[in-house]
Amino acid sequence: MSVMNVVSLPTLSRVALCGGTHGNELSGIYLVRERLRRREKGAEAEPFALVTVMSNPRAVQQCRRYTETDLNRCFTEATLSTPVSDGTPYEILRARELNALLGPKGSPEAVDLVCDLHNTTANMGLCFISYSDCDWICLHIYRHLQARSINNALLLFRPVDDLKNNRSPPAAMEVGPQSHAVVRSNVYMAMKEGVQLMLDWIRLFNSGAQFEGGPVELYTKVKTIDYPRDSESHHISAAIHPELQDRDFCLLHPGDPVFLTFSGETLRYRGKEPLYPFFVNEGAYYEKGIALSLARRRRLSIPSIQSERR
Amino acid sequence: MSVMNVVSLPTLSRVALCGGTHGNELSGIYLVRERLRRREKGAEAEPFALVTVMSNPRAVQQCRRYTETDLNRCFTEATLSTPVSDGTPYEILRARELNALLGPKGSPEAVDLVCDLHNTTANMGLCFISYSDCDWICLHIYRHLQARSINNALLLFRPVDDLKNNRSPPAAMEVGPQSHAVVRSNVYMAMKEGVQLMLDWIRLFNSGAQFEGGPVELYTKVKTIDYPRDSESHHISAAIHPELQDRDFCLLHPGDPVFLTFSGETLRYRGKEPLYPFFVNEGAYYEKGIALSLARRRRLSIPSIQSERR
Repeated sequence: MSVMNVVSLPTLSRVALCGGTHGNELSGIYLVRERLRRREKGAEAEPFALVTVMSNPRAVQQCRRYTETDLNRCFTEATLSTPVSDGTPYEILRARELNALLGPKGSPEAVDLVCDLHNTTANMGLCFISYSDCDWICLHIYRHLQARSINNALLLFRPVDDLKNNRSPPAAMEVGPQSHAVVRSNVYMAMKEGVQLMLDWIRLFNSGAQFEGGPVELYTKVKTIDYPRDSESHHISAAIHPELQDRDFCLLHPGDPVFLTFSGETLRYRGKEPLYPFFVNEGAYYEKGIALSLARRRRLSIPSIQSERR
Repeated sequence: MSVMNVVSLPTLSRVALCGGTHGNELSGIYLVRERLRRREKGAEAEPFALVTVMSNPRAVQQCRRYTETDLNRCFTEATLSTPVSDGTPYEILRARELNALLGPKGSPEAVDLVCDLHNTTANMGLCFISYSDCDWICLHIYRHLQARSINNALLLFRPVDDLKNNRSPPAAMEVGPQSHAVVRSNVYMAMKEGVQLMLDWIRLFNSGAQFEGGPVELYTKVKTIDYPRDSESHHISAAIHPELQDRDFCLLHPGDPVFLTFSGETLRYRGKEPLYPFFVNEGAYYEKGIALSLARRRRLSIPSIQSERR
């Protein structure tokens, strides 16, 4: 690829690393605590402005996903602009504080990149989540992680409407399998390594290094499947089948087992198109009516990039 | 062993199977729901009185371990006899209801056997828990499970003082690893098989079958170890070491790794005696200050038994 094709992008002068957006996803919480502790001791010196944030300290303190409402669903323009009253949930107040700290959203003062740290009970390895297929920064960071042969995948969620005015919607690192309210060393270390590689990449990028373009494989969400449920009680009547459990990102073919009912019956995938399952049996999604999500894999070609300032 | 050595014991005419004592341990909850559903349909006919109970329905509904206080710690004589007031926690009220339903504790009307179904995030397989080393019924049920080659262990907790007047303190089945608020098919099926084998054994016992005695290996709890903690914040500063994680009931030797601190340092077992770890990284025990428990393995010889009525 010739120099002509290198895309110039602004340096990432201000980056946010957030843990504890969900208060029972412990790897990100302990990683943020450890970084704050080291910085307090003067051990951490960043060559760019890194804002390290515990997103939902009240939920963290209670070791629950959230106290009143899911913080991760509070960053819409509508929620952020609703007038505050006595009954406004804690998470909405906290979302406004975070928006003031890291934004305001869509403004030129907003941080250049937000990386939100999450854990899942699903066997997804280290999964980097982006919300745009033309966010070259995120896609190059993912390539950098993959080149270091971390067990990982890139997941692309469809662009969310209310994010369209934002220069950089948040990227997320989702690492599992880890029970909620539990920290496992291997998952903590995978996240720590992923964060370190991302920060290394940002340093290199800011210092003027050029990153070669090329192909990137990613997964785009197509749909979700709920658990079978009892028509009266609405309780689930089956669990993920043992042949699908822990097989995130392994192709699911029509006719493959998906559920095993509590009375012992196997239920099969009725779709016509083979798709890639992910977030298989994620604990927090029972209440959302999601047993697994399904994705299409596709290949994207990304351009070479370099920062504007050298 | 001659007939002279056969211990005669009363039949088990009334047995209780309890799930949902902790409201986020889903295998036992779905197993109890499935049994209740089948019984409603007339599909389940027991040759003895089996009382199937959802122990803590309010915590189950909220998918939390408990709503105000741990139900499993509410069955002491002291708690059961405390006068009720407006501020009495739900779980204490529920413990009294359960005591009336299955007891009263220590009375001749009490059920002959209670089996309480639990899940753990620890890799304990199917672990049968008894509170006495001379409860021949529990020890024979365990032998029956083990002969059917279920991946299991027998754990003996020291007899609890306030249980001493009870004819049969509850036995428990603890099955893992399973995240809290998640159900995994393999764990559900292991529990279902364990319960079925136990009920089969009870039927055989009640019908007059004689069960040969012999050796039984069991684990007796010696002590617990807490996570290393920050002296000021009291937050944990390390997770279970990857070499210990998931290795419940594998002998831990002096000098073996136990923790990996969040800054990357390995901490080793300082005890002088090799012991067997269990409940390694159980999510619900962070708040109790328990990172793992340690047990001694010993061998017991149990007598042949037969029911009094034939």
